[in-house]
Amino acid sequence: MGSAKGRIRMVDISEKKFSARMSRARVRLCASPRVLRMIKEGGLGKGDCLAAAQAAGILAAKNTAAIIPLCHPLPVSFVDISFSFRLDFMEITSVVKTAYATGVEMEALCACAVAALTVYDMAKAHDKGIVIKDLRLLEKRGGKSGVWKALT
Amino acid sequence: MGSAKGRIRMVDISEKKFSARMSRARVRLCASPRVLRMIKEGGLGKGDCLAAAQAAGILAAKNTAAIIPLCHPLPVSFVDISFSFRLDFMEITSVVKTAYATGVEMEALCACAVAALTVYDMAKAHDKGIVIKDLRLLEKRGGKSGVWKALT
Amino acid sequence: MGSAKGRIRMVDISEKKFSARMSRARVRLCASPRVLRMIKEGGLGKGDCLAAAQAAGILAAKNTAAIIPLCHPLPVSFVDISFSFRLDFMEITSVVKTAYATGVEMEALCACAVAALTVYDMAKAHDKGIVIKDLRLLEKRGGKSGVWKALT
Amino acid sequence: MGSAKGRIRMVDISEKKFSARMSRARVRLCASPRVLRMIKEGGLGKGDCLAAAQAAGILAAKNTAAIIPLCHPLPVSFVDISFSFRLDFMEITSVVKTAYATGVEMEALCACAVAALTVYDMAKAHDKGIVIKDLRLLEKRGGKSGVWKALT
Amino acid sequence: MGSAKGRIRMVDISEKKFSARMSRARVRLCASPRVLRMIKEGGLGKGDCLAAAQAAGILAAKNTAAIIPLCHPLPVSFVDISFSFRLDFMEITSVVKTAYATGVEMEALCACAVAALTVYDMAKAHDKGIVIKDLRLLEKRGGKSGVWKALT
Amino acid sequence: MGSAKGRIRMVDISEKKFSARMSRARVRLCASPRVLRMIKEGGLGKGDCLAAAQAAGILAAKNTAAIIPLCHPLPVSFVDISFSFRLDFMEITSVVKTAYATGVEMEALCACAVAALTVYDMAKAHDKGIVIKDLRLLEKRGGKSGVWKALT
Repeated sequence: MGSAKGRIRMVDISEKKFSARMSRARVRLCASPRVLRMIKEGGLGKGDCLAAAQAAGILAAKNTAAIIPLCHPLPVSFVDISFSFRLDFMEITSVVKTAYATGVEMEALCACAVAALTVYDMAKAHDKGIVIKDLRLLEKRGGKSGVWKALT
Repeated sequence: MGSAKGRIRMVDISEKKFSARMSRARVRLCASPRVLRMIKEGGLGKGDCLAAAQAAGILAAKNTAAIIPLCHPLPVSFVDISFSFRLDFMEITSVVKTAYATGVEMEALCACAVAALTVYDMAKAHDKGIVIKDLRLLEKRGGKSGVWKALT
Repeated sequence: MGSAKGRIRMVDISEKKFSARMSRARVRLCASPRVLRMIKEGGLGKGDCLAAAQAAGILAAKNTAAIIPLCHPLPVSFVDISFSFRLDFMEITSVVKTAYATGVEMEALCACAVAALTVYDMAKAHDKGIVIKDLRLLEKRGGKSGVWKALT
Repeated sequence: MGSAKGRIRMVDISEKKFSARMSRARVRLCASPRVLRMIKEGGLGKGDCLAAAQAAGILAAKNTAAIIPLCHPLPVSFVDISFSFRLDFMEITSVVKTAYATGVEMEALCACAVAALTVYDMAKAHDKGIVIKDLRLLEKRGGKSGVWKALT
Repeated sequence: MGSAKGRIRMVDISEKKFSARMSRARVRLCASPRVLRMIKEGGLGKGDCLAAAQAAGILAAKNTAAIIPLCHPLPVSFVDISFSFRLDFMEITSVVKTAYATGVEMEALCACAVAALTVYDMAKAHDKGIVIKDLRLLEKRGGKSGVWKALT
Repeated sequence: MGSAKGRIRMVDISEKKFSARMSRARVRLCASPRVLRMIKEGGLGKGDCLAAAQAAGILAAKNTAAIIPLCHPLPVSFVDISFSFRLDFMEITSVVKTAYATGVEMEALCACAVAALTVYDMAKAHDKGIVIKDLRLLEKRGGKSGVWKALT
């Protein structure tokens, strides 16, 4: 019998210890100052963009293992998504927690990506050139490797 | 940098203790006696309405965290959905259990709502005026607050 | 060979004509005046409850065929969810449209149910006795049967 | 008040102990030697069939409780899907692990079924007569009943 | 700039004509005569196995494009799942229809697979050696290639 | 009766004409040259990263309306995801098509985001500092506004 090796493999976390874990991620959405003001003040005509982005981002964090093939399903115990605004971009930051055998980096990144796409969707009629930039992990706590922070 | 406060927030259950939890919920579906008899006896022409309602309600209980934005995903260990009939309404009762850091009220309510909607869907060709009434929590056990029962 | 009849059956809509269809549904959520005020004014501590309820309700309308076993998947072209408040209850109204071979009653009802459950979830820490009442179809347009309105 | 007994019931696993559990399942896909060679060598014109089948199978294992009504949601800690080829069939084997109160047989079977259907989908333009055969559990470890192996 | 060719590709159906399409598929589930009788007569202790299998199979047919990576989402207009019993196996047959630019073979196969897995799940406590056999397309109508029937 | 205006609103596309529509989007993933080489050559130890990213991205494109609250469900007729590599980043490009009443920008962006997150997930053990950059629409065809191209 010929054989073909499995090509995609989940990491086996059966033997890993549970610990309290946290990840923080961030993404930027660059748009015109006018459109950023509309996003901030709820003036897009489609409604309160930020609350919708939070709802979508939180749902995405919980649904990460169904979206990213090799992510482990895990009991997300907290998700928070917050926003801050500068002149030519807005920043979306997510914090995700769990007490489990593997980390929540992907959940935090997924929450940011989907929150940003939700804002994009509500703002795109006003600005076709929006760009979603610099989606990255900022911080990671818990597990064998302890605390890690990005050099931003 | 301007800031915008997060508007929707999950409760952080990272520090909460696991305990055995149970919730019981109930909903009523009001229809004509003729249609209620058809529902009870499987005579709707679309098949066994009650088994379909149970399957849909159980799936909904397990899927609650993907439907309700701020619900925590949790390991549902039991779902039961049962029916009883009076002359002018039927009653759908759900029981959901888990051993986790947060309760299963929303899972029990979601199971009832989806079971009732499934019955509605199968019966609507026979009665356009069906009303789904009085979806409520009946009982809740476990966690810090212990036993709670509705005054019905 | 023995046989067992199919017990649950989708309606065959292969031969039905496409037409513009609309359904309007409504549900009431009964809570204390204090909690209703908190819901209305965003003072629940979990954030803007109404925007979250709309996001969840719209997602549920689009996802109805994955929640209710015998519903046909269909191209939802519009969902709107609105709120009004009285002293001892709030009312959630949904409007759903499509141009397809079957109606959107279940989508409108599902949107209302999930929007109400989302409000319940955000308010339940303040009032355990919330009841979701009188989920019903208010109006239906399009298809062979034309316009139907509930006698409310 | 008349009563109707619940007809579909999840097993209550609230009282069951957690233990390390593993299931191994297998399915065969019978096609012409020419098509099997195309599957093995990535020559179907739709791309690398085996990696797609693994991604789909792993996602399905994680999603089993949303597909099979009475399955308990559980924290899958490992999924592996591998392939081997003979002249007139290919074999897909899955291994799934968890540390939980119930086993992962259905997850392993679901992974095999969906991996096989994904291969079928990518190969069907070349061979309408493909048959998916002999989907079965091969081995099960953990829980009260200990080790079980199929007599193959 | 180096390049890497796309490896998995959906068929482009943008230019294909809509036509009425139907697929019929079948699967067999082999179990002991005692267990088959329990399945047929609802004596498994977990309730009406066949109605649950139909609900799950119909939901799976509608959800095929979310399970199988390269399937096109399509407006399923009808799903029927029926059962027949012999001494040592049962047969599950699905019929799926659409009016669209591509066929519903995968939807019909997916419905059969998930219906069979649902029966397996409900019967596995009584018979660990159940085998799901011979999942195949029986018939296909519509589209450019017209009618096709399996030589069974 | 007090009233609270709906805050989140889908665009009503009931009256819009169907036309052939296409969107092309792009994202960059910045990693070390060593890790980019591993991604390109399948040397990450978790298997063929690019095929998994394509499968996940295609599934995400089809699932966009379930992830982004205000997106319309639509019949995706084609998704393609391709990769190219430079020294210090890789580029993921998606093309999505439909023939429908609204465009597929969000589907194309969602496909890129999820494909990039899948690569990130498979590579993160080798490089914690990966950044996902410049997710943007490149081109859009069809509908009232005709052809639009980004100035890149």
